[in-house]
Amino acid sequence: MSDILIRNCRPMGGAPADIHIADGRIRAIGPDLAAKTAAVEDAGGRIAFPGLVEAHTHLDKSLIGWPWHENTVGGASLMAMIDNERETKKRLGLDPHVQSMRHALQTVAYGATLIRSHVDIDTDAGLRALEGVRETAEKLAGIVDIETVAFPQSGLTIRPGTDRLMDAAMAMGADLVGGLDPCGVDRDPKGHLDILFGLAEKHGKGIDIHLHERGDLGAFSLDLILDRAEALSMTGLITISHAFCLGMPDQARVAGLVERLARLDARIMTTAPTSSPAPAVVQLQAAGIKIGAGNDGIRDTWGPYGNGDMLERAKFVGLRNNLRKDSEVAMALHICSGGGALAMGREEKRLAVGAEGDLVLVEGESLAHAVVTHAPRTLVVKAGRVTARGGKTLMTAP
Amino acid sequence: MSDILIRNCRPMGGAPADIHIADGRIRAIGPDLAAKTAAVEDAGGRIAFPGLVEAHTHLDKSLIGWPWHENTVGGASLMAMIDNERETKKRLGLDPHVQSMRHALQTVAYGATLIRSHVDIDTDAGLRALEGVRETAEKLAGIVDIETVAFPQSGLTIRPGTDRLMDAAMAMGADLVGGLDPCGVDRDPKGHLDILFGLAEKHGKGIDIHLHERGDLGAFSLDLILDRAEALSMTGLITISHAFCLGMPDQARVAGLVERLARLDARIMTTAPTSSPAPAVVQLQAAGIKIGAGNDGIRDTWGPYGNGDMLERAKFVGLRNNLRKDSEVAMALHICSGGGALAMGREEKRLAVGAEGDLVLVEGESLAHAVVTHAPRTLVVKAGRVTARGGKTLMTAP
Repeated sequence: MSDILIRNCRPMGGAPADIHIADGRIRAIGPDLAAKTAAVEDAGGRIAFPGLVEAHTHLDKSLIGWPWHENTVGGASLMAMIDNERETKKRLGLDPHVQSMRHALQTVAYGATLIRSHVDIDTDAGLRALEGVRETAEKLAGIVDIETVAFPQSGLTIRPGTDRLMDAAMAMGADLVGGLDPCGVDRDPKGHLDILFGLAEKHGKGIDIHLHERGDLGAFSLDLILDRAEALSMTGLITISHAFCLGMPDQARVAGLVERLARLDARIMTTAPTSSPAPAVVQLQAAGIKIGAGNDGIRDTWGPYGNGDMLERAKFVGLRNNLRKDSEVAMALHICSGGGALAMGREEKRLAVGAEGDLVLVEGESLAHAVVTHAPRTLVVKAGRVTARGGKTLMTAP
Repeated sequence: MSDILIRNCRPMGGAPADIHIADGRIRAIGPDLAAKTAAVEDAGGRIAFPGLVEAHTHLDKSLIGWPWHENTVGGASLMAMIDNERETKKRLGLDPHVQSMRHALQTVAYGATLIRSHVDIDTDAGLRALEGVRETAEKLAGIVDIETVAFPQSGLTIRPGTDRLMDAAMAMGADLVGGLDPCGVDRDPKGHLDILFGLAEKHGKGIDIHLHERGDLGAFSLDLILDRAEALSMTGLITISHAFCLGMPDQARVAGLVERLARLDARIMTTAPTSSPAPAVVQLQAAGIKIGAGNDGIRDTWGPYGNGDMLERAKFVGLRNNLRKDSEVAMALHICSGGGALAMGREEKRLAVGAEGDLVLVEGESLAHAVVTHAPRTLVVKAGRVTARGGKTLMTAP
């Protein structure tokens, strides 16, 4: 295992210190640590924070490395966008392994050490996307941890055979059962959710479900999800991604849902969207709910935005939630690093003796300054191993 | 006047061409233009678009160049933030000329050739901010055009004497009368608006009023504004900045307001905010309303965000309005360049023979690619004169 000494960094923007990582964990933080056998990296007074956590993305979808894809579909119809994606991926012959390598390594270059990726499972492509992303996860072992969610992007009950593919995906080793807008896509919430929870029970896994449904519709679906989770005692095993309905104006309705979520230790993953209602992170955290964040798909058939940078995503979390104080901006960063790991049911990433040896170095006067400028990362370390330097990963993407 | 030939650029991301600018205007666009006496700049195939337009900012507020300002006030109370700003500016002894030079030149480095700045007028600082920003406008003549709006940030009727200072500001040469949340700040909408419209009539100037008031309250204030504008036949002379109320859910109420705005040729300036309701740019443009955009204040006592980059702001306009098609992303850019100039009552900036000789060069595969990555600007030209190169202005800030 690696043994590395980071000299003269400023942990969380505070006073200068050295950080010693050995056997994958932080062993010491303090002034003038002895180098002994460790490789030494001079941080030059840069800010250090824990490895970033991309808790909601789609590694199999990005068109990174392809010529610019002109989007002519827009955002008017969800089903049109879903169909357009499936057809475009087929037409281009997109290789999920190659695309996920490119996307994951770009995310690592920005400082991520942990990724949760939803992966499309459908009757056109079968399990190819999952195979490709799992191959990427294996190749990037030690560089970034990648979890996979079997995701029925094109619908479950409306595309017969998808349920058997989802079962096969779980048997193949997907880490979580995914789902999508039980009313909006399948138009059969009971049918959709019964399949998801059946799979979760059978394979002993958690659920991470996309819930874009807004207002009362989303609240209805969320209640249905929580009913099943309570009945099956799935405490800590439910994740709601997006959860736009928690941004609805009816505060009493939201409070009731938040209470149920908290009681079940359910997790929320947000992208801090700019054109949708969104969960209010301050209120959710106050209720004890663990929150992660993600960039969602980047530069794909859904739209041209995004780059995989979870530090820029922290800026979006700040902007979306009107976080102006430095202490609040630090909270936004936590959601995109240590807090995201907690929301994924993992150990919290933090700069403390005994914690995982993941860290990122970046320019900045203060932690908030680093977030709002999301300046280039100068060094990324995963379990004591340098994975990226000067904004480039040491491993090159295919 | 300058005479310059831009070789091998891609106007609006299209086919390669040369652009010849002389005597401040574009004289020719086409392949293999003769250089003759012109200075030649090789664009290396980069994308060219018109000069960017910062249509809503506060040049007198930024803390650029100062050590990091820790924000401990947050966004809870508008009046607390207003008071905090006035007191902090006094305590630091902030020089409005120096700060506006830094802010304006940073905005130029990102490609702006036109700025509208609101400038605080209050009974503590008097006209000092306006004097400082006007000095900056003079020093930067030929580099960037700067308009000023006399802005009663601390209130008008609640701070006696402010009306006389506003009058003096207009007499000193402020370009527009500014205003702020007639209900929310002064808590006297009639009193506030009667003063603004009185000043506008007396000085023969337009009005650009900040309207953050949401929902029905904002709609009420907006109706009061439009009543007065109609009575005074101020067609084309009213600008509503922010106009959060146009993002209210009551679509019939919004439609009525939009119809009135369109009839008066009133203009909307948006920041495409992420934590507030916002005007829907597609629907407003369809109604014929001219829209500009701005970064608002950047890195000031209000919050740590922002950098003056109107190309990044175009990305925010796209994200906020769910613009995914390439053609829609191009519309977002137009709002941040030529369209913003139109909304300011100026000539549209565009890459066409006869138009103003303002342009920006940037890397990118396509126009949408340039917007979503807001890559570094390699060259900025204002009326045929190079103002910034490689992301740095030729004039250095104090």
